[in-house]
Amino acid sequence: MTRADDAGFLDLAIEQARIGWAEGGVPIGAALVHDGTVLAVGRNRRVQLNSAIRHGETDCIENAGRLPAAVYRRSVLYTTLSPCFMCAGTALLYEIPRIVVGENRTFEASEDWLRSHGTVVDVVDDQRCVALMERMLRERPSLWAEDIGEMP
Amino acid sequence: MTRADDAGFLDLAIEQARIGWAEGGVPIGAALVHDGTVLAVGRNRRVQLNSAIRHGETDCIENAGRLPAAVYRRSVLYTTLSPCFMCAGTALLYEIPRIVVGENRTFEASEDWLRSHGTVVDVVDDQRCVALMERMLRERPSLWAEDIGEMP
Repeated sequence: MTRADDAGFLDLAIEQARIGWAEGGVPIGAALVHDGTVLAVGRNRRVQLNSAIRHGETDCIENAGRLPAAVYRRSVLYTTLSPCFMCAGTALLYEIPRIVVGENRTFEASEDWLRSHGTVVDVVDDQRCVALMERMLRERPSLWAEDIGEMP
Repeated sequence: MTRADDAGFLDLAIEQARIGWAEGGVPIGAALVHDGTVLAVGRNRRVQLNSAIRHGETDCIENAGRLPAAVYRRSVLYTTLSPCFMCAGTALLYEIPRIVVGENRTFEASEDWLRSHGTVVDVVDDQRCVALMERMLRERPSLWAEDIGEMP
């Protein structure tokens, strides 16, 4: 996977985040890529599906459907925001070996834990991802608190 | 919460696991209880919903709907089997303070991690839960491998 490939796949995740924001939701998106082929994209759908478990990464993994372990183990998960423990745990359950993270300035919880289990976590520090979250924190703070289980 | 209360709530999770097995699925169930009131039950629905993320605990938390952080922080999660990393991560995301585990003989991954974050994990070692999983491992081993991301 080249850096240009990574940028293209992260763009898909960012597009999902933007769709989620336009839908009134939490602007976090993801893409799951196996050997260079996109298996699925997804976005946080807390608002859209009234869901407590459809974060960007879990929605994406759900959209990819039931896959054999061997597929996950050769896949890369792209996400606009550093994963929470639920999403990190999902990646560890399926032993997804690499996660490309758009940004971790506005939220970071699981990176050390993922790396301690051997997951490669590459943080891109993409300003588009930061801007999506900064607008979220400014305009929908209580929704964001709900999404990460924080007291408002 | 008394031991008798715990037993009653674990019974609900076991009932869910049995329903899941009868549906052709993975026999793991869960219940989420807030201050003694059952908020939701759930069961692994990998087969039933073609889902990669509906484990017993996550299905239960999804069924409970969108809840404020304060509710999760006074809730107990009952599960027939020791949680995988995805489900443990979900409990940590929402800071559910206590998990009652039916059994951890047939699978255990996250208990040390949960405890290191302050979660109380009480393992009941219920023989009905062990029997459900032993039948699963005997009769549906490849489904179980898929469910925990293992190579068949």
